[in-house]
Amino acid sequence: MKPMVINGSTRLYGIAGDPVAQVKTPELLNSFFQQTGINAVCVPLQVATSGFEASLRGVMQLSNLDGLVITVPHKVRACALTESLSAEAQRVGAVNVLRRCEDGGWHGDMFDGTGLIVGLLRQGFVLKGQHVKQLGAGGSGAAVAFALLAAGAASVTLCDPDDNAAQALAQRINASYSQHPARVSDAPAELVGIDLLINCSPIGMKPDDGLPAPFADFSPSLQVVDIIMHPAETPLLAHARRAGCHAVNGKPMIEGQLAEFIHFFGLADKESLCARSR
Amino acid sequence: MKPMVINGSTRLYGIAGDPVAQVKTPELLNSFFQQTGINAVCVPLQVATSGFEASLRGVMQLSNLDGLVITVPHKVRACALTESLSAEAQRVGAVNVLRRCEDGGWHGDMFDGTGLIVGLLRQGFVLKGQHVKQLGAGGSGAAVAFALLAAGAASVTLCDPDDNAAQALAQRINASYSQHPARVSDAPAELVGIDLLINCSPIGMKPDDGLPAPFADFSPSLQVVDIIMHPAETPLLAHARRAGCHAVNGKPMIEGQLAEFIHFFGLADKESLCARSR
Repeated sequence: MKPMVINGSTRLYGIAGDPVAQVKTPELLNSFFQQTGINAVCVPLQVATSGFEASLRGVMQLSNLDGLVITVPHKVRACALTESLSAEAQRVGAVNVLRRCEDGGWHGDMFDGTGLIVGLLRQGFVLKGQHVKQLGAGGSGAAVAFALLAAGAASVTLCDPDDNAAQALAQRINASYSQHPARVSDAPAELVGIDLLINCSPIGMKPDDGLPAPFADFSPSLQVVDIIMHPAETPLLAHARRAGCHAVNGKPMIEGQLAEFIHFFGLADKESLCARSR
Repeated sequence: MKPMVINGSTRLYGIAGDPVAQVKTPELLNSFFQQTGINAVCVPLQVATSGFEASLRGVMQLSNLDGLVITVPHKVRACALTESLSAEAQRVGAVNVLRRCEDGGWHGDMFDGTGLIVGLLRQGFVLKGQHVKQLGAGGSGAAVAFALLAAGAASVTLCDPDDNAAQALAQRINASYSQHPARVSDAPAELVGIDLLINCSPIGMKPDDGLPAPFADFSPSLQVVDIIMHPAETPLLAHARRAGCHAVNGKPMIEGQLAEFIHFFGLADKESLCARSR
């Protein structure tokens, strides 16, 4: 593999967020560019919430910038900077990728949910027919719930301290599915009949966070996912590991999006990429 | 030397121009970052003339962007985006570097001229006491003429198809030097008494350009500089090579600015850098 060389002809990709120190996308995308010999680079772009639109619009005017990945806290506001949105981005109400179209306009899409599915299937998770309990009904939660159902999950029970957010998401999901697979629960620790537990809340990121709910011991057959990346093992994942559960953190979700990003950016044929990365 | 890895903590530098395919700064600065282990990267930023201010202002709002190199055609307009300018940038009326100050404002400076001097001295050119004929009195020409005189050249004779530009530059130079070392000539091919010929005009960039003036054969003792980078050998340089002159293109001018850039960006002690790059 040749060393990365950035010259005047190098095409640009960026990941826009605040903070950005935690992002993994530059390493993943740049490794792809090196492997494939594509003269492009992905760099972190720290875009403050104050002045977000003007700053990102300025960046989007760079003629050699072809695409952007959008991360916290800009996924919802970035929708307004696009000329078009995918059905998924419209449904979720947020974007995590933007690309420049041939007519110069920008198109947005959302792969948090589908990326998670790809990542979980690679990790050997069973999704089809599963009953899911999901903690957190915010932006990522919306993407995740829709994606789990699209991947064949039988039901999603949503818990969120903001009961209105959970109710609203459940309504949106049930409006899309004739079998009305989403319901809301105010008992997050109740796991009877649940095959997969997924945490889409931020509880577990801070050092003194405990479990996101007062769980009893898990059954070893429970599948557990925490979409948090830092720390690598949250209290929830430690709890799952002690019970012998199949459990993963947010890394597969990010890695699972790489092929989606590359496809979305028009950088390669998706099928061959999926095959290569297996 | 470790391979370049761009992660979420990588600091950003950019070179803004249009076009940008020809720029060499990313390779030079990134090589420095790799050698020194500084977690930073320089990328090309293609900023169109239309919407230049809004686009570059947006880029300058990125919290992880620490500095910019400015190239054609933005060196004059970029002055207006700064909160302060060096004496050199004020004198020349253009900037080729911007850095973010501790108070959040941006400071601009101009190293085209001084970079050329460093580059020429490294290449063994004699500047002190020399009589210079300079073709081209535009933005780069202004920086070059001031710098040659600051480096000890005895006189600069300016030729430009735009006689007003040449006259205006000569007046500005002579207002700064009590010995009034600048004059204007409408005979660019006349080299009697000239020790160094420097082309700061664009003539020689296009494939069918000939010599920038109808020169007779050069004396082998004439020093010849063409600040054009592409093609590497312009008709002027070919003419000089055939005569056995000491002659160089624009590469030493760019390379000569590297240490200036690094110093300007506060990335290292200038003296130790100069020593290292020798």
